[in-house]
Amino acid sequence: MNTEARQILEAVKSGSMSVDEALLTLKSDPFDDIGFAKVDIHRKLRQGVAEVIYGEGKTAQQITGIIDSMTASGQENILITRLDKDTAARIHRDIDYDDISRTATVGEYPEPDGIGKIVICTGGTCDIPVAEEAAVTAAFLGNDVRRIYDVGVAGLHRLLSCKRDIMSASVIIAIAGMEGALASVIGGLADCPVIAVPTSVGYGASFAGVTPLLGMLSSCAAGVSVVNIDNGFGAGYLASMINHVARRQ
Amino acid sequence: MNTEARQILEAVKSGSMSVDEALLTLKSDPFDDIGFAKVDIHRKLRQGVAEVIYGEGKTAQQITGIIDSMTASGQENILITRLDKDTAARIHRDIDYDDISRTATVGEYPEPDGIGKIVICTGGTCDIPVAEEAAVTAAFLGNDVRRIYDVGVAGLHRLLSCKRDIMSASVIIAIAGMEGALASVIGGLADCPVIAVPTSVGYGASFAGVTPLLGMLSSCAAGVSVVNIDNGFGAGYLASMINHVARRQ
Amino acid sequence: MNTEARQILEAVKSGSMSVDEALLTLKSDPFDDIGFAKVDIHRKLRQGVAEVIYGEGKTAQQITGIIDSMTASGQENILITRLDKDTAARIHRDIDYDDISRTATVGEYPEPDGIGKIVICTGGTCDIPVAEEAAVTAAFLGNDVRRIYDVGVAGLHRLLSCKRDIMSASVIIAIAGMEGALASVIGGLADCPVIAVPTSVGYGASFAGVTPLLGMLSSCAAGVSVVNIDNGFGAGYLASMINHVARRQ
Amino acid sequence: MNTEARQILEAVKSGSMSVDEALLTLKSDPFDDIGFAKVDIHRKLRQGVAEVIYGEGKTAQQITGIIDSMTASGQENILITRLDKDTAARIHRDIDYDDISRTATVGEYPEPDGIGKIVICTGGTCDIPVAEEAAVTAAFLGNDVRRIYDVGVAGLHRLLSCKRDIMSASVIIAIAGMEGALASVIGGLADCPVIAVPTSVGYGASFAGVTPLLGMLSSCAAGVSVVNIDNGFGAGYLASMINHVARRQ
Amino acid sequence: MNTEARQILEAVKSGSMSVDEALLTLKSDPFDDIGFAKVDIHRKLRQGVAEVIYGEGKTAQQITGIIDSMTASGQENILITRLDKDTAARIHRDIDYDDISRTATVGEYPEPDGIGKIVICTGGTCDIPVAEEAAVTAAFLGNDVRRIYDVGVAGLHRLLSCKRDIMSASVIIAIAGMEGALASVIGGLADCPVIAVPTSVGYGASFAGVTPLLGMLSSCAAGVSVVNIDNGFGAGYLASMINHVARRQ
Amino acid sequence: MNTEARQILEAVKSGSMSVDEALLTLKSDPFDDIGFAKVDIHRKLRQGVAEVIYGEGKTAQQITGIIDSMTASGQENILITRLDKDTAARIHRDIDYDDISRTATVGEYPEPDGIGKIVICTGGTCDIPVAEEAAVTAAFLGNDVRRIYDVGVAGLHRLLSCKRDIMSASVIIAIAGMEGALASVIGGLADCPVIAVPTSVGYGASFAGVTPLLGMLSSCAAGVSVVNIDNGFGAGYLASMINHVARRQ
Amino acid sequence: MNTEARQILEAVKSGSMSVDEALLTLKSDPFDDIGFAKVDIHRKLRQGVAEVIYGEGKTAQQITGIIDSMTASGQENILITRLDKDTAARIHRDIDYDDISRTATVGEYPEPDGIGKIVICTGGTCDIPVAEEAAVTAAFLGNDVRRIYDVGVAGLHRLLSCKRDIMSASVIIAIAGMEGALASVIGGLADCPVIAVPTSVGYGASFAGVTPLLGMLSSCAAGVSVVNIDNGFGAGYLASMINHVARRQ
Amino acid sequence: MNTEARQILEAVKSGSMSVDEALLTLKSDPFDDIGFAKVDIHRKLRQGVAEVIYGEGKTAQQITGIIDSMTASGQENILITRLDKDTAARIHRDIDYDDISRTATVGEYPEPDGIGKIVICTGGTCDIPVAEEAAVTAAFLGNDVRRIYDVGVAGLHRLLSCKRDIMSASVIIAIAGMEGALASVIGGLADCPVIAVPTSVGYGASFAGVTPLLGMLSSCAAGVSVVNIDNGFGAGYLASMINHVARRQ
Repeated sequence: MNTEARQILEAVKSGSMSVDEALLTLKSDPFDDIGFAKVDIHRKLRQGVAEVIYGEGKTAQQITGIIDSMTASGQENILITRLDKDTAARIHRDIDYDDISRTATVGEYPEPDGIGKIVICTGGTCDIPVAEEAAVTAAFLGNDVRRIYDVGVAGLHRLLSCKRDIMSASVIIAIAGMEGALASVIGGLADCPVIAVPTSVGYGASFAGVTPLLGMLSSCAAGVSVVNIDNGFGAGYLASMINHVARRQ
Repeated sequence: MNTEARQILEAVKSGSMSVDEALLTLKSDPFDDIGFAKVDIHRKLRQGVAEVIYGEGKTAQQITGIIDSMTASGQENILITRLDKDTAARIHRDIDYDDISRTATVGEYPEPDGIGKIVICTGGTCDIPVAEEAAVTAAFLGNDVRRIYDVGVAGLHRLLSCKRDIMSASVIIAIAGMEGALASVIGGLADCPVIAVPTSVGYGASFAGVTPLLGMLSSCAAGVSVVNIDNGFGAGYLASMINHVARRQ
Repeated sequence: MNTEARQILEAVKSGSMSVDEALLTLKSDPFDDIGFAKVDIHRKLRQGVAEVIYGEGKTAQQITGIIDSMTASGQENILITRLDKDTAARIHRDIDYDDISRTATVGEYPEPDGIGKIVICTGGTCDIPVAEEAAVTAAFLGNDVRRIYDVGVAGLHRLLSCKRDIMSASVIIAIAGMEGALASVIGGLADCPVIAVPTSVGYGASFAGVTPLLGMLSSCAAGVSVVNIDNGFGAGYLASMINHVARRQ
Repeated sequence: MNTEARQILEAVKSGSMSVDEALLTLKSDPFDDIGFAKVDIHRKLRQGVAEVIYGEGKTAQQITGIIDSMTASGQENILITRLDKDTAARIHRDIDYDDISRTATVGEYPEPDGIGKIVICTGGTCDIPVAEEAAVTAAFLGNDVRRIYDVGVAGLHRLLSCKRDIMSASVIIAIAGMEGALASVIGGLADCPVIAVPTSVGYGASFAGVTPLLGMLSSCAAGVSVVNIDNGFGAGYLASMINHVARRQ
Repeated sequence: MNTEARQILEAVKSGSMSVDEALLTLKSDPFDDIGFAKVDIHRKLRQGVAEVIYGEGKTAQQITGIIDSMTASGQENILITRLDKDTAARIHRDIDYDDISRTATVGEYPEPDGIGKIVICTGGTCDIPVAEEAAVTAAFLGNDVRRIYDVGVAGLHRLLSCKRDIMSASVIIAIAGMEGALASVIGGLADCPVIAVPTSVGYGASFAGVTPLLGMLSSCAAGVSVVNIDNGFGAGYLASMINHVARRQ
Repeated sequence: MNTEARQILEAVKSGSMSVDEALLTLKSDPFDDIGFAKVDIHRKLRQGVAEVIYGEGKTAQQITGIIDSMTASGQENILITRLDKDTAARIHRDIDYDDISRTATVGEYPEPDGIGKIVICTGGTCDIPVAEEAAVTAAFLGNDVRRIYDVGVAGLHRLLSCKRDIMSASVIIAIAGMEGALASVIGGLADCPVIAVPTSVGYGASFAGVTPLLGMLSSCAAGVSVVNIDNGFGAGYLASMINHVARRQ
Repeated sequence: MNTEARQILEAVKSGSMSVDEALLTLKSDPFDDIGFAKVDIHRKLRQGVAEVIYGEGKTAQQITGIIDSMTASGQENILITRLDKDTAARIHRDIDYDDISRTATVGEYPEPDGIGKIVICTGGTCDIPVAEEAAVTAAFLGNDVRRIYDVGVAGLHRLLSCKRDIMSASVIIAIAGMEGALASVIGGLADCPVIAVPTSVGYGASFAGVTPLLGMLSSCAAGVSVVNIDNGFGAGYLASMINHVARRQ
Repeated sequence: MNTEARQILEAVKSGSMSVDEALLTLKSDPFDDIGFAKVDIHRKLRQGVAEVIYGEGKTAQQITGIIDSMTASGQENILITRLDKDTAARIHRDIDYDDISRTATVGEYPEPDGIGKIVICTGGTCDIPVAEEAAVTAAFLGNDVRRIYDVGVAGLHRLLSCKRDIMSASVIIAIAGMEGALASVIGGLADCPVIAVPTSVGYGASFAGVTPLLGMLSSCAAGVSVVNIDNGFGAGYLASMINHVARRQ
């Protein structure tokens, strides 16, 4: 920013930019205020990735408005998460909706350009919707994704049979409900970053995801970090960041 | 009890026992009231095992009084748990004190007479005191005990190297703090009852044992049940019961 | 497993098995990967009991797929738990559905072959569905089951009238909501393992089963262990394991 | 109060009391402001019982000041609770200190004048300090107290042997830690009000009294109400109120 | 019971009762086992009050069965609580249903015969259903009830205007949600037992009644005890016990 | 009040008021008891603002009754909060209903007469309903309101672009769900009182508003205080009080 | 800031300021980086009040360093909170230490210049340290403070005797532990902003301040907001902000 | 591993390895069992980093034993965390102890060889010990570390003055107690992975780190993941993994 500021100041000094113009440029807000939302139209520049719309609690009309604002500012690839089927149906734009992950996308999936492969594991069948949210997110942000589902620790041989994938991953996303032990076991096997996602799958003492959340945070394996309950998007987004970490340097 | 009642009633009818005697016998309390405690002196008959004194919060004087009451009623084998070293030193009776498990015993350890072997596993080194409380309890109640310590799931190969012991156990006690995933993994490997003991080992989000407690309760493996945090005694006692279940039938 | 490994290695040495065959055998996964699930088809060998399908959160189509995979691998007795009536009706296979316990079974109930009797007690009428899940599970795994319902501690005489059954059980399952005191009282009366099942019956300060859960874990009676809230299946499964503990040795 | 107000107004009308005097009387504060505390000197009139000083967190000097203020206003019987031994030793007034209940009293214990007997039960030996706080309080407020200690539900016969006392009580105080099941069992046996006092005795999942607190609140027995954890005083005070309820009518 | 036992024993001795008869009598269960429930038919004798059916989670058919069992054993006055309107409509017996308190009664309300008056206060309008459950219960158990609703502490003058009723009550039931301060304020004004009932009225940080529950338990006023959240029945039942405490002596 | 009391006493003394009249005046309740509610009809005098009806859990009939009672006592401006659309439609009085804030008003909005401007910020789009409840409340109580929505801290430049409004506010209401960091950031930027309102927006570890609530309470910025989750009304009311604080002196 | 920015840009344009100087000015950090801390030296300008040092967890050396940095930048009035006596003794600067509130001050207390009076109430004697922290803070920030201690709601007449002070306050700080009902009662009496401070005074179910915290947040009285447990400083600081709100406009 | 298995099998086939040797090799445990611990001596091979000893709860003797076991197996670089000063002093080996981070190291720090720079930020001065644990860990694992301390969000300009470092980091570790808002703000500014570490710094409603933990998990900024409370080591270890992610591919 200082470079930019210096350029503006130099331009002012040289007279090629008026004081008012300079002031305006320094002040120009990198978002579009559409009343109910302030749409960030420079994020791709600032953070290197497509904008994401969190669909939960927004009306079809609001989401359409945000898509239009983005499209108008040149954003071609948009990911919408937590979008229920009914709302999706009322968005009259060119979106691809996937009802397992409850995501929609505008634009094409890019070619994978990350360092390696993102492996996504789930403890059970019921964790698949969260896993798919992570998978769609990671793929849409330019990553090669490998899905390994239903490998909970109660049948350890199922997990061990996938050991090769686990050992060769760039990043692993471990998704589990109940007691969430999957993250610890994978964390012990792998030598790459493991992003643990607790899910609300389970009942009674798993407290809608709180128990796997706490278990994953308390994991005895190093290299494990945790995102919010059911936050497949967050895991996919972070995994992509890690998988592209070298590119930015 | 009905048999006993019938015998008493028959004795009354035949005149070999007076009404008052019968009433007394029916009423006789199977405990010794020593003021601050009501010592159960028939438990061995009733439940088939030695009496146990829970030492926490009792003075050396109170514990001595309970030992004397038991000894007077013929109880030869007594286990005292949660006994700190200082209190133990002030009990002037013939006790064997073990300062890792914080237990003391009166009388000899019996020959093992259970169905099979009780295997006790811990996730880490810090769980050993709880494990030893379980081991002393199980051994004192007549069981063959096998200790496997520091086999937490973050280094799965350590646990897998003990798979033979795990596969051949009669009962397994899985003791772990932090996230407590050990119970799930052992539960998935073993085909015998697994008693999970959460420990207060860990920090932050393991909440002094609450997280492994909840994790163990939510375990995705069947055949796992849970006792209170750090309750090595309870696990050893229950394991012994299970290991002797056939004997009582 | 070492025996098996040794046999394979001996076969390789003798030339009766090729290296590739040996490798394949050592690697062969004892599960059937049907996409959304990895069906464990060797569990009966490995853990000695029928496979169980946890129905919650699975579609009729998914459950049907798992049943077919099991049947194909020779599994004749299958138990499905947490299955709601509507889903059950859409599974077009030969299942017996029970709508109190919300379980379904494929195949016949075996003759009881355990050590003794499994006694299942409930505190109230509302705990019966959980009790029936335990009862069906235990019976389907080859146990003689005795039901004693509505014997909560607020009317102690009801419980005491069943003392004979309690005293002669091989294992007892104590099921209660509200404050869950039933487990402590039965634990004090019985001299066999007691599996406590907290239920979500109650309101206000019983917090959907958390209060009986904590109460049962804190029980002053020895020999009591606890499974997850409303986990009738887990209790029945574990009770069966205990009731068959001698057979495996 | 209206009677009093009317009398004052009548006195003003008749001229036997000046407006200022009347105003003063209507406004006179029934407490003595001694800076750090506002000592209630009319409570005996207003609520019929002696004033009680809650000692916790007060210095010996502050407590001495409050005693003096009370004595000066004619209060002859004072109860001080939660008073540790060291603080008690630094109060240079004529007090009787009891170090089990951690209470001190000024003045004589009155003759019991309640409706019946207050029975105080504890689950274990460790609950005795709380029980003694209740017992001292009740006795000091004029009640006949019967102590029944160490009758926890894990040894039901100990409790049942005291059934006669329980059946004939006017009020029962049930004091227990761990899971607190004592309150439910007594509530089921007795037909008088039961005041449940959870104690912080226990460890792990009893959470310093929270579990017995919740268990007692969720009790399946009617006629049970609950006071704060370890609140022996509150239980004794309320029991006395109930035991004197007829006297006030 | 000893009297009864002695009489039976004397009868056996004299030959007027056979051993088998005696055994039967000693064993005879004071309840009617109707399969899904064990109906207590001697409670009126044992605890001096009508039997109460807790309707929550019971079907109309089950409730009808229990009513019939009670009626058959001579119970004329029955109270049913937590009964929703639809279930009530399907009970084809002679019941009076009240849809504010969600209670139904069989038989007539008795003449009040307690020591004094039971005063029931609520903090707000929304607490009225709980208050009515308490009021119906207390009235049906033979008490004179005075209702004072919507006197929350945020408008203290409303409460103070009822001070006369509060000062002259035999027992007070203080019902409030949100922060539950009503119990403390009434506890400070009154000199009779105060039964505090937290309600689930409120939102956010009142956590469906947990906050008033904890607040009432922590009340700085003596003489206050607490029942479960929304437990109007428990409060009314206990208030009646207290209001009749003298009668039983 | 003393002035009033003195005047009454003087009037009694002078004979211009009878004792009975005086008694009546001293006792006259400043509320209208309409059965299910005690309507405060003097609050405007006592607290200087319009009466507010909390609509949650009240029927249309009850709300209509309260409006009528207020109108009858001369209250012209009434605010009704937490009123759902259906209930609003059944209130046949002259009300203005706003379905975003779920509020209704009777009477006109006054001219703003506060010290300065109340600025209301939200972290996201989903917090707008709570913000509008605050905005309507503040405006109806006579304040100039400035809305700044969707300025969550994850896009700090959006918030910083409004720094001028924040720096010049009289009071700021910071409304946010999820982690609630908005309050800390605004608290650090502003030099006026900040009222933080946690919202139930978010999922998983935000626990329906508990996490932003705790975060706001723990804020490292001074000058921040907190109201209940989703309590837009409370924030607007308090902001108005602060914005009028000088007027009352 | 735009004004400042414009001036700098104009100066650059006119040549009176070099580009580098301008850049420096725009970048100049308003804090002093002393290694372990970044001391804010412009806060007085930015927020209009003295800087405050939070002493908890800082060494005497660190605090001394921060004082020196402030003094060097012209800050004459410094408040240090949460400072224990021992640390205070090791700060060799000219400070006034008060051991009840655990605060220290550098420089003189200013003349009160707020709108009105800040009234500080406590429920009990034990809340006084928190109250004094609030009082010292408010006084040091230029406010007239009135202390009213030990007026808990269990003795309502004590609080009502101070009604005049409460009615005439500019802001009230209500400090209470246990159930924290004081805030609701004062909130109902007063017509000015009430800042509620829960304290960790109490035991058992008051959970070290959590219960009064939740109670105060759930208060049924409008105009009440809450700060963190035991946060006397925060309350005093905010009260001062409110009491000076008019001055800043 | 399959390669290794194949090689062993080929060797068996060719006769160059005996069946027993092969069996042994397949079984050989990659750890050293020293009784109280099973020291992992192949981790460097398996996970590419030095072994770390978690010092908490281990005696000096135990730690010495583990160091010796590692040294014996050729491990030259050892990191010991959570080591208190006294224990460190009793370890008679060549260790470097740092008492701020409470870590010790054996061997030299390596040259940084990661992708970029790891930036470590703290909210306050009290978070420094956790930050130093992270910094030592990251540096010892071969990373270039940049420390930015005391930049909490309540003084946003302090954080913004470091924006350049934040924008250019490879990974950022954001460490904060109280409400933990630092993670969200940094997450919004940065375009690299942010590892959030909640600390137990704070009081009252920050609940020893629970509030910042939950806040960080609920962060509205993408790219943020969380480790356990005060887990500086975990953050440093994971940051190193991410900073080396490209190297392993």
